[in-house]
Amino acid sequence: MTPAEFRHLVRNQEYVNPTAGICPGFSQANLIILPKEDAYDFLLLAQRNPKPIPILEVSELGQRGLKRLGHDLDIATDIPKYRVYQDGVLVEEPLSIEKYWSDDFVSFLIGCSFSFEDLLLEAGIEIRHIEEKVNVPMYQTNIPLEGAGQFSGNMVVSMRPIPASQVTKAVQVTSRVPSVHGAPIQIGHPEEIGITHLDSPDFGDTVTIKEGEIPVFWACGVTPQAVVMNTKPHLAITHAPGHMLVTDLANRELII
Amino acid sequence: MTPAEFRHLVRNQEYVNPTAGICPGFSQANLIILPKEDAYDFLLLAQRNPKPIPILEVSELGQRGLKRLGHDLDIATDIPKYRVYQDGVLVEEPLSIEKYWSDDFVSFLIGCSFSFEDLLLEAGIEIRHIEEKVNVPMYQTNIPLEGAGQFSGNMVVSMRPIPASQVTKAVQVTSRVPSVHGAPIQIGHPEEIGITHLDSPDFGDTVTIKEGEIPVFWACGVTPQAVVMNTKPHLAITHAPGHMLVTDLANRELII
Repeated sequence: MTPAEFRHLVRNQEYVNPTAGICPGFSQANLIILPKEDAYDFLLLAQRNPKPIPILEVSELGQRGLKRLGHDLDIATDIPKYRVYQDGVLVEEPLSIEKYWSDDFVSFLIGCSFSFEDLLLEAGIEIRHIEEKVNVPMYQTNIPLEGAGQFSGNMVVSMRPIPASQVTKAVQVTSRVPSVHGAPIQIGHPEEIGITHLDSPDFGDTVTIKEGEIPVFWACGVTPQAVVMNTKPHLAITHAPGHMLVTDLANRELII
Repeated sequence: MTPAEFRHLVRNQEYVNPTAGICPGFSQANLIILPKEDAYDFLLLAQRNPKPIPILEVSELGQRGLKRLGHDLDIATDIPKYRVYQDGVLVEEPLSIEKYWSDDFVSFLIGCSFSFEDLLLEAGIEIRHIEEKVNVPMYQTNIPLEGAGQFSGNMVVSMRPIPASQVTKAVQVTSRVPSVHGAPIQIGHPEEIGITHLDSPDFGDTVTIKEGEIPVFWACGVTPQAVVMNTKPHLAITHAPGHMLVTDLANRELII
């Protein structure tokens, strides 16, 4: 299935699940939509925090299409599940945001670590949440972002358990794709970044950590949602964690 | 001399020349200052064109100091020469912009290829404009930027003649510092990017190209000035080409 075919399924609400493992070889993207008046502060936040918020594309004002990430793409319908935040509170998880759409919206598409999972698989590293057919576990941390204007908050991370013998390889592989979060931000000591319960993630699902495996943490594109909950802008629309935009951009294009 | 000591010299107008070769090991930065109303469009232009416009830091609104690039730093006095553009026209080249300063200004500091010159020197590659004690030659190209809002224009490049046997090394060394323009954008065929007269650069000075040397072109942080001349915002203040901000940021921090 091509990314465009998958987006059509989503548009018709025939696929409403997390997207890890979908369309291998193609990048996936996080979303945050903000009114124009908040766009400068958010773009500056991204510039100052490129690990958790690596921008892949910014839409033109009010446009539901994109230029770089895909043709035949509608940002208001092509994500399996959205989250609508009003004054920092999650008020709805709709399958489409057409009824919310405004000509005043700017969409920010942010690199997603699902994009490097096929590179890890190619390197012989198993991805536990794909194996267990659940959403990736994600955690709030105590790592403060560098704030910008009204926006501030802490970094969110995703976690993958990696056998100790493969941690070096996982660092090497992901270092080559900085635009989808790049190298891990922490290896093996969750409590150092404020994570006390690996078995109860703040977003997504729990996965098994086997004997001899190390929890490895990557910066996560759900970070903007933590920022929204912290700073409470009037309106923000995001993807639901793990439910990403599947783009036409080949992962190999992101390798440096 | 430390970067802070050098900036004091500049602040006292005791140094008014190009800065190539100054404070080896420390990054230099291009500047463009715009009123807040133009800041979003410019930040988006930078996001869409990271080769010519790699942002190192964006100031807080109206602030003359910076957080990341240096302490004891005044953006209104610490650059050896500025350019003031009104409606796209260069109206003055002052040594200080204190009289122009407004609480409405945002300063964008952009990576400069002078920052990788000591890496090239360490790799045994001579830098002709340092050798000849002149400014680096810079050229307008026919390479269009991806526009953002009101801003559009073509890329400006800097040129260094490199012996054919060292071109590979020059690519390798500069590929590792993407935040100061990274790898060359063109090697050996200036006419393909619209440069017809190597001996009459659009900015900076002419340098000798010896037998057996290839002209190598890197994206240049003077590009925003070409954008300003093309799109004529009401007011823009920049550094004078080659006259950079010398920062406290070590070049080794930029290596990936």
